[in-house]
Amino acid sequence: MKVGILTIGNELTSGKTQDTNSSFIARRLQAQGWQTSIIMSVPDDEGAIKTGLNHIMSLADAVIVTGGLGPTADDITTSAVARAFGLGVYTDQAALKHIRDRFEKFQLKWTANNEKQAHVPEGAETIKNPVGMAWGYALKRDGKIIAVVPGVPSEVKRMVPDGVIPVLKKEFKDEAGHVESRTIKLSGITEANVDQLLADVDFAGLGVNIGFYPNFPEIQIVLTAIAATEKAAKESITAAEGRVSEILKQYIFAYDQDTLEGIVAGLLTDKKLTIAVAESCTGGLVTDRLTDVPGSSAFLERGVIAYSNDCKADLLGVPEDVLKKFGAVSEKTAVSMAEGVRRLGKCNLGISTTGIAGPAGGTTEKPVGTVFIALANGTTTFCRHHNFRWDRRRNKTMMSQAALIMLKRYLTGELEDER
Amino acid sequence: MKVGILTIGNELTSGKTQDTNSSFIARRLQAQGWQTSIIMSVPDDEGAIKTGLNHIMSLADAVIVTGGLGPTADDITTSAVARAFGLGVYTDQAALKHIRDRFEKFQLKWTANNEKQAHVPEGAETIKNPVGMAWGYALKRDGKIIAVVPGVPSEVKRMVPDGVIPVLKKEFKDEAGHVESRTIKLSGITEANVDQLLADVDFAGLGVNIGFYPNFPEIQIVLTAIAATEKAAKESITAAEGRVSEILKQYIFAYDQDTLEGIVAGLLTDKKLTIAVAESCTGGLVTDRLTDVPGSSAFLERGVIAYSNDCKADLLGVPEDVLKKFGAVSEKTAVSMAEGVRRLGKCNLGISTTGIAGPAGGTTEKPVGTVFIALANGTTTFCRHHNFRWDRRRNKTMMSQAALIMLKRYLTGELEDER
Repeated sequence: MKVGILTIGNELTSGKTQDTNSSFIARRLQAQGWQTSIIMSVPDDEGAIKTGLNHIMSLADAVIVTGGLGPTADDITTSAVARAFGLGVYTDQAALKHIRDRFEKFQLKWTANNEKQAHVPEGAETIKNPVGMAWGYALKRDGKIIAVVPGVPSEVKRMVPDGVIPVLKKEFKDEAGHVESRTIKLSGITEANVDQLLADVDFAGLGVNIGFYPNFPEIQIVLTAIAATEKAAKESITAAEGRVSEILKQYIFAYDQDTLEGIVAGLLTDKKLTIAVAESCTGGLVTDRLTDVPGSSAFLERGVIAYSNDCKADLLGVPEDVLKKFGAVSEKTAVSMAEGVRRLGKCNLGISTTGIAGPAGGTTEKPVGTVFIALANGTTTFCRHHNFRWDRRRNKTMMSQAALIMLKRYLTGELEDER
Repeated sequence: MKVGILTIGNELTSGKTQDTNSSFIARRLQAQGWQTSIIMSVPDDEGAIKTGLNHIMSLADAVIVTGGLGPTADDITTSAVARAFGLGVYTDQAALKHIRDRFEKFQLKWTANNEKQAHVPEGAETIKNPVGMAWGYALKRDGKIIAVVPGVPSEVKRMVPDGVIPVLKKEFKDEAGHVESRTIKLSGITEANVDQLLADVDFAGLGVNIGFYPNFPEIQIVLTAIAATEKAAKESITAAEGRVSEILKQYIFAYDQDTLEGIVAGLLTDKKLTIAVAESCTGGLVTDRLTDVPGSSAFLERGVIAYSNDCKADLLGVPEDVLKKFGAVSEKTAVSMAEGVRRLGKCNLGISTTGIAGPAGGTTEKPVGTVFIALANGTTTFCRHHNFRWDRRRNKTMMSQAALIMLKRYLTGELEDER
């Protein structure tokens, strides 16, 4: 099935707002095995909406429309869509009650123009909005479906998967099958390398579509299988995931909705371990990421951002002669920082970063992007060295990623195995 | 003048890549006083490209096309555009030399398919690419301009302002005037409030177009003036900026390309002041942002992320009875943290944050989003209190923003004025 996407709003065509709805919807359509044949944005203008709608309907079996369902004068999508098909508009009482209930719940002042948000073209089926005001709707014309939802991204993210896609599946049911998908998150490898390493795997033969989505500093692999039964779709995904794991095991750190910081936090909490962090080049980013996880006070005791050599020496106990002989950016300094912060915080673990984020400060021996990361547990102190080649912010991001990956590998026993 | 944008690529219609080119180009067109009447994305398919191009040319005076100029088999934009207008394609020798020179410079291995990147439709004017391989080109057909550039965002960001817009200005010169623009960055106010407070200003009467661009945690106001002379355009901008400053002065923290962390870093460096940071709820984010500025080691001595009460007491010297009586989230604790970290780092300044990022941990008296921020200079310790209402990550972002704004106001003398 071919689907077109039409996003409506002056804020899109003026460049004021980035259209993120289209790419979200296209991914969801791809996961159903459907093809997005065109994506279009037009201003809040009746002529532009009609012309756009007609053009897309000449190319696709269905159109998903977002935007222009609000209460103000420039929100004209419903009247434009209705007039494009010669339909009247009525006020849907259930949609109106939903809006009135939300006004009451959030103690908002009712104004008459809000009734417009319950307007629906004649003959349309409404699509509920669990997270906002205006409901959406779906129309059938000339054997094609036109589904309309509000433009607010958080509403699109709920209403398209839960409301629009089920309508399309029902209408085009001979094409639809059972769909399963799996996201695999990798770190420490480029998209080009993933592509090359997986080139010989016959994913199509396994009944699986594969997509790569770089999301700095990660790469996401999305596997999608469509089959007649849930069992068959799941078997395809399992087989394909097995092949990806065999080849890329060492780079995989998470699946589906999991995040690296969330996994590390879960492991520390489960094992009842506490940690202290000593950062130099990452400037607080490792601790910032760990504290993005709710409940991080259970395992994070403290962080020290030891930007000056004084701080490395007086607070973390890095010996002056280590700093003098090997430099602040060295394995010995990293090790001493990790051991020092662990001692200072009276924790089970200490982790440290020291390096050169750039753009200045690099040397031939230690170029910009060099980082030493150490992890101390009271018995052993591990140290790893990396060299990244990005700008300052992305070097910091990669360095924090490497530190969290190292911590995860330690907590799952993989770091010890490497020695 | 009306312009349409056509972005080409399977990666766009599959949702794999977010199309950021369209919104960048639309903003640049808006800054010229031109209108973007349609934005469209189509897959790498000759039929789709032709149909899309024809549709846009029926609506606009010019089309800007991005993508599909690479060396591989799926890059078919140039042949599709040429065939759409019944034109042949030739290899532009200057474009080819540019590509060969880059291969040599970056020590890349030449393969025959790279010559394709120098293909240009007959009669087109080439547009140089200072940051990549393939040059772009502009064609004139039926009094309309079709300008084509590669899809790589960094190349679009150079080639559209420096190459495409000058071609359009030349062709549609009776409409073009001198354009000036100014970006004003605000913090601590919502978009709705900005809109309301500026509602009575007659920007159109001043010859200025105004746009708001929310960019969490900031709001950007962009003023654009088009006039017959540079002098007249500048005068319009100055008048409009004066009106905005009068009304919103207290929320303005930067102009044009400046960032909050960059301004604070510049002030600290110029005044030869050193600073130490003590963070609780922000978890390292304040220091992370300060260390995003190259050369931050000149002013940042250290940071302490005092997540545990032990750390607040043993390292920062917050008295046990303050923690017991007022709690970790209190003005007294914030003040004691700022003074403690300043002392510890032997710095001119100490700044601290303590609060509740959420989602748990809130009380009626101190709900989620509460933060106390203190700034100590050895003589006086200032403390400010805020209450944000976002999710955990955005609360952390707003709290770090409030801390950096407070530091900026101190450094410019505005904080003392408030007392």
